[in-house]
Amino acid sequence: VTDSSLPLGPGGEFDRIRAIWARLGRRAAGVGGDAAVVSMGGARLALSCDASLEGRHFLLDWLRPEEIGWRAGAAALSDLAAVAADPAGVLATVGVPADRAGDFLVRLMDGLGDAAQAAGAVLWGGDLIQSERVLVDVFVVGRADRPVQRRGAAPGDGLWVTGALGGPRAAVAAWRAGSPPGAAARERFARPVPRIAEARWLRDCGATAMIDLSDGLTGDAGHLAAASGVSLRIAAETVPRHPAADGWEAAVAGGEEYELLAAMRPDFGPDHAAEFAARFGLPLTRVGAVDSGAGLTLEYQGRRVEAPDAFSHF
Amino acid sequence: VTDSSLPLGPGGEFDRIRAIWARLGRRAAGVGGDAAVVSMGGARLALSCDASLEGRHFLLDWLRPEEIGWRAGAAALSDLAAVAADPAGVLATVGVPADRAGDFLVRLMDGLGDAAQAAGAVLWGGDLIQSERVLVDVFVVGRADRPVQRRGAAPGDGLWVTGALGGPRAAVAAWRAGSPPGAAARERFARPVPRIAEARWLRDCGATAMIDLSDGLTGDAGHLAAASGVSLRIAAETVPRHPAADGWEAAVAGGEEYELLAAMRPDFGPDHAAEFAARFGLPLTRVGAVDSGAGLTLEYQGRRVEAPDAFSHF
Repeated sequence: VTDSSLPLGPGGEFDRIRAIWARLGRRAAGVGGDAAVVSMGGARLALSCDASLEGRHFLLDWLRPEEIGWRAGAAALSDLAAVAADPAGVLATVGVPADRAGDFLVRLMDGLGDAAQAAGAVLWGGDLIQSERVLVDVFVVGRADRPVQRRGAAPGDGLWVTGALGGPRAAVAAWRAGSPPGAAARERFARPVPRIAEARWLRDCGATAMIDLSDGLTGDAGHLAAASGVSLRIAAETVPRHPAADGWEAAVAGGEEYELLAAMRPDFGPDHAAEFAARFGLPLTRVGAVDSGAGLTLEYQGRRVEAPDAFSHF
Repeated sequence: VTDSSLPLGPGGEFDRIRAIWARLGRRAAGVGGDAAVVSMGGARLALSCDASLEGRHFLLDWLRPEEIGWRAGAAALSDLAAVAADPAGVLATVGVPADRAGDFLVRLMDGLGDAAQAAGAVLWGGDLIQSERVLVDVFVVGRADRPVQRRGAAPGDGLWVTGALGGPRAAVAAWRAGSPPGAAARERFARPVPRIAEARWLRDCGATAMIDLSDGLTGDAGHLAAASGVSLRIAAETVPRHPAADGWEAAVAGGEEYELLAAMRPDFGPDHAAEFAARFGLPLTRVGAVDSGAGLTLEYQGRRVEAPDAFSHF
């Protein structure tokens, strides 16, 4: 059973979320965006949670403890960036095996504390458990007085992406092949940066819809299209590619980028992008446009192509 | 390195939390209570997270999927009860193996949705991951306009506990011995009830400090004593015992009760307790008193006794 009121893109994981949503009925509200946006006592809040699990999202060989904490925090904070919220606080459930409950755990929390501080948030609390695999589940809370959500993109809007894509995927591919990744690709995986200030700037420039790139550009574009009730057209050759990314496929399918995909009004153009780049030291690139209709059309040099397989948790 | 500004009772797990706290410095705030209480845009909020992990907090043989979800939700919501907050919303990270991503997962979420609804909260969102062990990490948010915290107990106050203790521990002991627990003890483990309305009533009757019983009465009393800068004296023979509890030791050391321990002003007496019992169908029992000094004194029929070992996650 699926519920058409929960607009997510295609995929087995999202069918599961739709089935849960249908069962919960009125016991659930606001599920399905990057962050829940709710009103409480005059304040408008954005809330989200995001888990990082050893063996699923990273291996212990790949990262220092501080990086495990930073990365988990940055990934969760990126959900607040996606709705242009201002991070305020973080809670974390952290699970480690008994033999990692000393220095390893303190260093992991050090990295998480750095990620929170860099985003303007404070660690408010958490839960500590013993687990076989290292687990960092981060809950984030922010102010969202003027949120941008996945819905709102309109035909004629341009589609813009921050940064250059494919670095994290290249790092994982290198590790899996048994060779250490290059420093730049490794940094993209180990120290992602939630685009908090960039999101506020995009909102102030009239972003109509936004999402952060965690499932991969094509997967996340599918969510934005479903939520906005529009179709999106992406020209794969225009997608900015990290130097380590192997071809356009690696750039459009690479997950865990924590960059932003934003729909901007038609009058947003290269001058604005240049201002963004100067301000943030980060490219902002037009990669496609919003049309009427539904779903995602991926083209490579004018020819329609299939979206390569993206990362899926199931 | 420990930081005396983080008042927790004794124990290796709490030493770890103190070490993390010391490292984080100004990057953390408010850690160490049942729930963080913060102000955001005019609203005073209480926030907490609590994880339930298969193999650590329960076994799959013990519980139906709905009970796994309910119990995880109730445990987290109990942290809001501990500060007399009104639950508003819940987010949950849920991890299951691939072969449990269908009906099992939907039923688990059904139970979590029921726990949220029973407490007046709505499921706002979550994260779904694949994990070897079933994991339910619940993040709760409530309004806390007039919070009661662990600090505030004063010499002369009475110590009162809701419900009867030792049922969950008896259920776990039976399962571990290979025999199914009795229905009443099983229910206490599988379907704990966060004492939301009871907490508000205790606050309105002038509770000076409060904590929910997750680590066991003696362990949690140690936290309350440390936070309030007082000593607590508990008379073990007065602690209300679940019928399945085997002796006073089982009642004072049993964890995961999700009952409340409250310090009430000296004028709070048996008449108030009778009103509480009539209103909530639950006993409220005086188990001791607050003194000046530090730490916990446990007595059995007037003789000082050692606190039995409580549940510890490490």
